[in-house]
Amino acid sequence: MIDPLILTLSCPDKPGITANVTGFLFEQGCNVLEAQQFNDRASNAFFMRVAFDPAGASSDKLREGFGLFAARQDMDWKIVSRDRPRRVLLMVSKFDHCLASLLYRWRIGELPMEPVAIVSNHPAEAITHIDLSDLPFHHLPITKETKPEQEAQVRAIAEEVDAELVILARYMQILSDEQAAHFAGRCINIHHSFLPGFKGAKPYHQAHARGVKMIGATAHYVTTDLDEGPIIHQDVEAITHADSPDDLVRKGRDIESRVLAEAVRLHLEERVLLNGQRTVVFRG
Amino acid sequence: MIDPLILTLSCPDKPGITANVTGFLFEQGCNVLEAQQFNDRASNAFFMRVAFDPAGASSDKLREGFGLFAARQDMDWKIVSRDRPRRVLLMVSKFDHCLASLLYRWRIGELPMEPVAIVSNHPAEAITHIDLSDLPFHHLPITKETKPEQEAQVRAIAEEVDAELVILARYMQILSDEQAAHFAGRCINIHHSFLPGFKGAKPYHQAHARGVKMIGATAHYVTTDLDEGPIIHQDVEAITHADSPDDLVRKGRDIESRVLAEAVRLHLEERVLLNGQRTVVFRG
Amino acid sequence: MIDPLILTLSCPDKPGITANVTGFLFEQGCNVLEAQQFNDRASNAFFMRVAFDPAGASSDKLREGFGLFAARQDMDWKIVSRDRPRRVLLMVSKFDHCLASLLYRWRIGELPMEPVAIVSNHPAEAITHIDLSDLPFHHLPITKETKPEQEAQVRAIAEEVDAELVILARYMQILSDEQAAHFAGRCINIHHSFLPGFKGAKPYHQAHARGVKMIGATAHYVTTDLDEGPIIHQDVEAITHADSPDDLVRKGRDIESRVLAEAVRLHLEERVLLNGQRTVVFRG
Amino acid sequence: MIDPLILTLSCPDKPGITANVTGFLFEQGCNVLEAQQFNDRASNAFFMRVAFDPAGASSDKLREGFGLFAARQDMDWKIVSRDRPRRVLLMVSKFDHCLASLLYRWRIGELPMEPVAIVSNHPAEAITHIDLSDLPFHHLPITKETKPEQEAQVRAIAEEVDAELVILARYMQILSDEQAAHFAGRCINIHHSFLPGFKGAKPYHQAHARGVKMIGATAHYVTTDLDEGPIIHQDVEAITHADSPDDLVRKGRDIESRVLAEAVRLHLEERVLLNGQRTVVFRG
Repeated sequence: MIDPLILTLSCPDKPGITANVTGFLFEQGCNVLEAQQFNDRASNAFFMRVAFDPAGASSDKLREGFGLFAARQDMDWKIVSRDRPRRVLLMVSKFDHCLASLLYRWRIGELPMEPVAIVSNHPAEAITHIDLSDLPFHHLPITKETKPEQEAQVRAIAEEVDAELVILARYMQILSDEQAAHFAGRCINIHHSFLPGFKGAKPYHQAHARGVKMIGATAHYVTTDLDEGPIIHQDVEAITHADSPDDLVRKGRDIESRVLAEAVRLHLEERVLLNGQRTVVFRG
Repeated sequence: MIDPLILTLSCPDKPGITANVTGFLFEQGCNVLEAQQFNDRASNAFFMRVAFDPAGASSDKLREGFGLFAARQDMDWKIVSRDRPRRVLLMVSKFDHCLASLLYRWRIGELPMEPVAIVSNHPAEAITHIDLSDLPFHHLPITKETKPEQEAQVRAIAEEVDAELVILARYMQILSDEQAAHFAGRCINIHHSFLPGFKGAKPYHQAHARGVKMIGATAHYVTTDLDEGPIIHQDVEAITHADSPDDLVRKGRDIESRVLAEAVRLHLEERVLLNGQRTVVFRG
Repeated sequence: MIDPLILTLSCPDKPGITANVTGFLFEQGCNVLEAQQFNDRASNAFFMRVAFDPAGASSDKLREGFGLFAARQDMDWKIVSRDRPRRVLLMVSKFDHCLASLLYRWRIGELPMEPVAIVSNHPAEAITHIDLSDLPFHHLPITKETKPEQEAQVRAIAEEVDAELVILARYMQILSDEQAAHFAGRCINIHHSFLPGFKGAKPYHQAHARGVKMIGATAHYVTTDLDEGPIIHQDVEAITHADSPDDLVRKGRDIESRVLAEAVRLHLEERVLLNGQRTVVFRG
Repeated sequence: MIDPLILTLSCPDKPGITANVTGFLFEQGCNVLEAQQFNDRASNAFFMRVAFDPAGASSDKLREGFGLFAARQDMDWKIVSRDRPRRVLLMVSKFDHCLASLLYRWRIGELPMEPVAIVSNHPAEAITHIDLSDLPFHHLPITKETKPEQEAQVRAIAEEVDAELVILARYMQILSDEQAAHFAGRCINIHHSFLPGFKGAKPYHQAHARGVKMIGATAHYVTTDLDEGPIIHQDVEAITHADSPDDLVRKGRDIESRVLAEAVRLHLEERVLLNGQRTVVFRG
């Protein structure tokens, strides 16, 4: 029975990298199932994702051997199991449409994750539309004064449950720079997007007042630069003059739910590689 | 043979407006072909577009009669021919993809317009990809110093040819506040749109550097607020990490061409009504 | 407190209908909140939807008065409450993604409906991904032999709970002509759609084998003409050569869920009028 | 100065192919600029596209060397120049929107092609909306009786001008099986697409009568199976009940033009590989 592995890597581009990487896997007897690469001519960087059947080779031995090769190439890399569900910490506020969407997709086996904790600044009773009965729920209220302490609690929980990914599923709280830095590269946020953009409260009402004809959502990695981290996925939907602010909020729920779910899927399947403030997304 | 008219109007909303307007047309013996209305609950404003067969009634007499009624309602209104091509002044720079798209659509009878003048800050020889031989072309160079004078020339030409609409088909020059005010409500611009937005030069290169996953275009009425006038139409297209800045420019040409053409069509068919800094678009 | 009503009507087109209808409402002291109309030039038919504040007038009295007028116009019409949740019977099989989507939207107040019964040919235990605990569930197994009897049971339940709408939320059973006729105009189905189309089993696998680049879904009223009733809403999504049949099934779930939910919303809000084998959809 | 080459190949999948192919290029001193591969698990086939800088190696020598390797792998392959414009024969009828779009994109340098002949069953005078003055035009009328002869003329012209690609830009004539077979793999057609599909004349009128809510277009390689060859690209657009058949035709022009142009670009850039009746499209 196959237990496939995934190798992802990035490094400065130079001749022969593909040949060397695939040559290494071939010599170890591995069978490539899926492979993608991207040469970023602008930054002269090389990115690769290979899913492969190790065909008996142990993942530890492969990592050891590949590490020797990678060290000579100034390479960021990892070799991980393809099918092991990733341990995920979900953060949510009172708006639970993104959480509902993620949990349903998990329950039917669409998202290879294991929700190891749900954290909210509201009590579980505030989330009335979905069944959380079988999930560990942590109510961590937050105020301006208690924010450092609350964030430390979140970090403690994340460590305790060994969370590999933190999903801000409409958490509605801005992470401190410290918190953002702590979870860098393993924390995904969803926010609304408009043409042109808006800052501040009640964005859908602002969009309505501005008379935009499309609304959208952006899923991105959290960085200290608020709402500006590397973008993983975006989508939009057309609206008309007849759409009220409430209609925009309703349509926004749909777009937010599906854009976040797609970004999470791409991340869980190791399809997203960081390229400075951009991402390389190998969709398969 | 029918020569249909279009009535468009906006006014404060109050009970009975639809009944009164349609009652008036009925009494005059007119046959409604198409009618749309919108009650903006937020601003308590009412908007209506009616295409109708005057059935023998003269448009002048209808205007006279309707004017008496409209005066009592604090109403902005007009009654115009549906099928008469509107006289259009096109402004263009060296990038001629939007111009090419508009002229082709005009030539096959898709856009009910008559191009009465083309104005460019470049000579006709700079526009090498389309046949302009049968169109009046005005080369009006512009520098920082000559801008007031050049804009006066544009106004003079617009007056001389009796232009009803000015289309900035990638004109690449910012109109002065004076010029923007002069053409208010009858000047359409197209510009790129991104999530999030960018200001400044080389927008597609900025979008590439930022790693956005969608690019788009916005067609809007020109106001003194640069690139921020009432939006008529928008559209977007997905891009990936593998799209170079050149790919973005190429895809941008497509989106800009079709968004501008659609906005122009909607305007020419009297389907766009102003609602403060927003628009009401009756698509039919 | 306002309790708005909705008037929908269709009739042969002739001069003065709008004036007469809106004049009637004006005379009764009603305030129009939203109004849309469509003149189908091809079939010479007229369609209208008016949401209005009755301003004290009783709905019974309005119906009586309008009925006298409508009788002279060969008009199909109804006047109904705008905000009263419609009583809905949901039919489902083992695939519960559409059901999950509808129930979540109902629970957060997005869909103005009241699920009065869930019918499945599988036991409640087969639906493992959503919480059905507070909903009346009917397990009605079906075989070729028992189909007439099972369909009679469905009709009996629909009558008992006074269902106004039947939603086939991936029911996976073909209704008999008798059953389709019984629920004509008040039964919505969702099915996959492809370019080009396919008949038969495992459609997503067929689509993969055919190499299509887009998959979609169609929500339509059920008629005796299988999968061919009047279309309410459609949407599609792009796919690539790298999408496996399983990827297509996954994407199909998303499209099916949102297309069905949108069609149900449009129907519940009285925005869909039948026009022969077509529909008029007043989106607002 | 770089004159890049493109290697495309397909063969039965087996371990080590990527390593061997990229190893070969590395040994010859070539620098990979862009590389994509796809393992079709269903058919156990492997597909690859590599754009590379030969770095001084002659393309003839590379072909010779690669041929020895490829022969052992049961491989379909070619090595071609990336930037040399392909010689294209365009076939058109009276509807010239696709032709206009292709020629404009060629003139601004967007499509790497050289139009070596335009063939139409109508005289050049029938194509009134675009400037054909600098292009070799062949008027080849066709009737049921003269079809074999006319098709022979087309083949003769294609041979004489050494056409690498034939584009049916709304040619409106069905190729005979003989002709389709003659141009197999190097002839692209565009046709409308609907959900559900239609056969026969006046498709947009049929779509209107059926009440579909989306219309689309499909670009595909021509095979003897009419309108059913391997699909390269598809796109759709939403329509409403208010769109007349004429509106559908208008929107259809837009979709057809851009879908065909995109398919032609993908083909010219050697991004489309045949996989039975499917295609692998490496978008970059």
